[in-house]
Amino acid sequence: MTEVIAALREALGDDAVRTGEAIGERHHTDWSGHAPAQPRALLLPRTTEEVAAALRICDAHRQSVVPQGGMTGLAGAAVPTAGDIVLSLERMSGVEEIDPAAATLTVLAGTPLQVAQEAAAAQGFELALDFGARGSCQIGGNIATNAGGLRVIQSGMTRDLLLGLEVVLADGTILSSLNKMVKNNTGYDLKQLFVGSEGTLGVITRAVLRLSPPRPQRHTALCALADFDGALALLGHMRRRLGSDVGAFELMWPDFFDLCVSLTRSKTSPFAAAHPMYVLVEMASIGGDDDAGRFAAVLGDALEDGIVTDAVIAQSASDAAALWEIRECTAEFPVALDPINLDISLPIGRIGAFVDECRAAFAAAWPVHRAFFFGHIGDSNLHVTVDGRTSPGATHAGVDDIAYALVRQYGGSVSAEHGIGVLKRPYLSYSRMPAELATMRRIKQALDPNGILNPGKVL
Amino acid sequence: MTEVIAALREALGDDAVRTGEAIGERHHTDWSGHAPAQPRALLLPRTTEEVAAALRICDAHRQSVVPQGGMTGLAGAAVPTAGDIVLSLERMSGVEEIDPAAATLTVLAGTPLQVAQEAAAAQGFELALDFGARGSCQIGGNIATNAGGLRVIQSGMTRDLLLGLEVVLADGTILSSLNKMVKNNTGYDLKQLFVGSEGTLGVITRAVLRLSPPRPQRHTALCALADFDGALALLGHMRRRLGSDVGAFELMWPDFFDLCVSLTRSKTSPFAAAHPMYVLVEMASIGGDDDAGRFAAVLGDALEDGIVTDAVIAQSASDAAALWEIRECTAEFPVALDPINLDISLPIGRIGAFVDECRAAFAAAWPVHRAFFFGHIGDSNLHVTVDGRTSPGATHAGVDDIAYALVRQYGGSVSAEHGIGVLKRPYLSYSRMPAELATMRRIKQALDPNGILNPGKVL
Ligand SMILES: Cc1cc2nc3c(=O)[nH]c(=O)nc-3n(C[C@H](O)[C@H](O)[C@H](O)COP(=O)(O)OP(=O)(O)OC[C@H]3O[C@@H](n4cnc5c(N)ncnc54)[C@H](O)[C@@H]3O)c2cc1C
Ligand SMILES: Cc1cc2nc3c(=O)[nH]c(=O)nc-3n(C[C@H](O)[C@H](O)[C@H](O)COP(=O)(O)OP(=O)(O)OC[C@H]3O[C@@H](n4cnc5c(N)ncnc54)[C@H](O)[C@@H]3O)c2cc1C
Repeated sequence: MTEVIAALREALGDDAVRTGEAIGERHHTDWSGHAPAQPRALLLPRTTEEVAAALRICDAHRQSVVPQGGMTGLAGAAVPTAGDIVLSLERMSGVEEIDPAAATLTVLAGTPLQVAQEAAAAQGFELALDFGARGSCQIGGNIATNAGGLRVIQSGMTRDLLLGLEVVLADGTILSSLNKMVKNNTGYDLKQLFVGSEGTLGVITRAVLRLSPPRPQRHTALCALADFDGALALLGHMRRRLGSDVGAFELMWPDFFDLCVSLTRSKTSPFAAAHPMYVLVEMASIGGDDDAGRFAAVLGDALEDGIVTDAVIAQSASDAAALWEIRECTAEFPVALDPINLDISLPIGRIGAFVDECRAAFAAAWPVHRAFFFGHIGDSNLHVTVDGRTSPGATHAGVDDIAYALVRQYGGSVSAEHGIGVLKRPYLSYSRMPAELATMRRIKQALDPNGILNPGKVL
Repeated sequence: MTEVIAALREALGDDAVRTGEAIGERHHTDWSGHAPAQPRALLLPRTTEEVAAALRICDAHRQSVVPQGGMTGLAGAAVPTAGDIVLSLERMSGVEEIDPAAATLTVLAGTPLQVAQEAAAAQGFELALDFGARGSCQIGGNIATNAGGLRVIQSGMTRDLLLGLEVVLADGTILSSLNKMVKNNTGYDLKQLFVGSEGTLGVITRAVLRLSPPRPQRHTALCALADFDGALALLGHMRRRLGSDVGAFELMWPDFFDLCVSLTRSKTSPFAAAHPMYVLVEMASIGGDDDAGRFAAVLGDALEDGIVTDAVIAQSASDAAALWEIRECTAEFPVALDPINLDISLPIGRIGAFVDECRAAFAAAWPVHRAFFFGHIGDSNLHVTVDGRTSPGATHAGVDDIAYALVRQYGGSVSAEHGIGVLKRPYLSYSRMPAELATMRRIKQALDPNGILNPGKVL
């Protein structure tokens, strides 16, 4: 047993320092499936002070530390190498306070997102952060990745929900800024640095998140459009008429739509004819007297103005579920395809041209291939899936190279939501200029001069 | 003429480097009226590259530089000392692009806020940043102070509107991140550092701001309440029923209300009786079929539930103006009083207790005094005004000492909106812990190792 492990055992107790087989496999890799490794040790601190003590020891020994949340990340950012010690927040779990007047939730970083959501709901509030991994991912991981998800179009990214943060720096300094105020202009807003830093600048231990009134009313429709410009026109029309009640705007190109319909139970399109573009739209509101009428009027006007060529408005919850079943066929992709998935973003107006050019570039590279495009375009977010099974020659690296080169050309981002981790490191410079990368390194150097926090990730 | 001035003249041209009397007085101090000083020189760069060249020269000569926007700041943050060179962005003015699909505005930092607002409005959008100094303050200054204002309750602070930023570091490095995307998780979000940094970390040269659909419909009411808890209940009620359509929530304690009524033209309260608390509420919406009815119903229910004891709903624009005339009597304060003004924030639920305790502390210090309290409490923001004229012994420093000591105790902020500058430097540690201040210094050191940018401000 080496010196650093002995010092950690002394500081945290034997029970909080595991080595060898006692480290569960779930600490070896994340949801990206990046090459797993058994780390040197697993730390399970119970308090912020224990996190600080552990980091102080590791920093003194120049021992690398990988913070771990729920391990649902998709960029390999929480995956250790054999020499790393991993620090899991799982024992630091629980909602500490809901302040109804301030509409805030104070929570330990290891709390699963769903636990926080349910605590908020029990007090009549909504925590407007939600996505598929809710049961496993942790608030600390959400902040460290600046997670997005299903509510971004209305409520923004995790950053937009964050009011206060407690974080431990590499040298054990505890930065506690558990601010609950909307307005607070007292010097640099340090918490912003840790949002999306993927464990490379500090270990998040607590957070104050903003809550909002629930928007339980949902009205759903599937629209057919003539082209991408029609989608832009509809998005603008809905925003002007419904403002922040626009709750979903999921654009589906026909390749994606047709595949998805074929994967539904009914295998039948809600439209009699085929169309050049489809969009699933939703209004999500607090609930007014005639929200259904308001939604129908907005879509009616879009039809009348020729923005929309056809539309199916859900008349019931089961109608809406059937429309969502199409869009959510992505859950079937791992079975139906060998999916190579990209999560990129682009200035909204350029998404249509990007898709056309990307499609052409794929065709040039792989004469036989299948690619599917859909996007949360209100969030500037585009997803691209290439089916490895039916696209001879197409590899993840090949798809990345083609698509990311175009992303660079279009001024887009190689990572809309999932972060850089290890998997997108080779492409970070496609979306960030040398001066930006150099400045990120200056910040890293200032906060973690010995480079112990999650080395080899992001930068 | 010293070496640094000569080098600057050579790089920027004589016309862009002024000294002595050629420096207009408006560069000597800001709206805070902090002790004016004639700086060593005034720089008037025309491009980002000229800003970079100027900073490179100043950095090499260890010459301090004070960035200046519209000089409307209230914390003395843009006020030079005699040894400083000031760099004004006034020549770098203009809206470069409005992207309707992305709903973004790209603007040079020296553009007056009002010019940017009008450009957005001309394209059918709203730039949701607004306050009294709109005609003079600049977008760069708004970002450097993280300005708030009239729309915060609906749209947040300047930070929440900022998507992209171009900024020049002390050593002349140009960081250009003119992002238009809602989702972009590619490494550290560097722009966040410069928001609210009051010219100490870099010179802002360009920005991309988020636009929104206008909310032209306004419905206004004045409500009477039993106490502060009633105000909290009404705020919660309105948020649950109107969500993000709550456009104003201006709480007035009776001392403030009575003074204000006496300063209106009619000198008459809209209520027959006196009440323990008043709040001006507004719904600001995109415009539905029956917004007036929705607003009246929400207030009607509040009356029925006993949350509100009395209410006057404006039936016309002139009714609404008459109600706002009461709240906006603050414009008369400089004439009617010798106002000592504070701009603080507190966790919303604690504002009532704070006011009571603050009032008692003032009374203990100055048996004869007049103090007035009102707050944008939806933003956690409280304003306190003590009238120096009728409060013998009360000085700005005395008021600060009493109020800020309580702010510290209540976990509040000594600066809600106006920043720290020089005027609040003595109190920064009341709202920030030593570890936070030390970390701010680490960041300052990393980005401006020679300390040339706005020395003596904030930290
Ligand atoms: C089914 C599924 C659906 C998903 N959908 C979305 C989606 O819609 N939007 C989206 O944005 N993401 C999505 N993700 C990705 C992932 O869930 C998010 O990135 C999530 O925020 C990661 O949280 P985690 O706790 O699992 O973090 P981990 O995977 O454990 O870690 C992720 C990164 O954060 C760091 N980290 C974790 N905790 C801390 C801490 N306390 N302090 C400092 N650093 C820490 C790690 O070092 C690592 O760099 C999805 C994943 C899955 C499996
Ligand atoms: C009548 C009136 C009403 C006001 N109301 C409000 C209000 O409601 N809410 C609110 O928040 N504020 C308010 N203010 C304060 C002030 O208007 C804001 O702080 C505004 O954002 C300052 O902008 P400016 O361009 O005038 O900045 P300046 O006063 O010129 O500078 C302010 C700070 O920003 C720095 N700075 C300016 N430009 C740049 C740049 N390009 N790059 C880097 N640093 C820069 C300066 O160095 C200084 O530290 C008000 C002021 C007045 C006079």
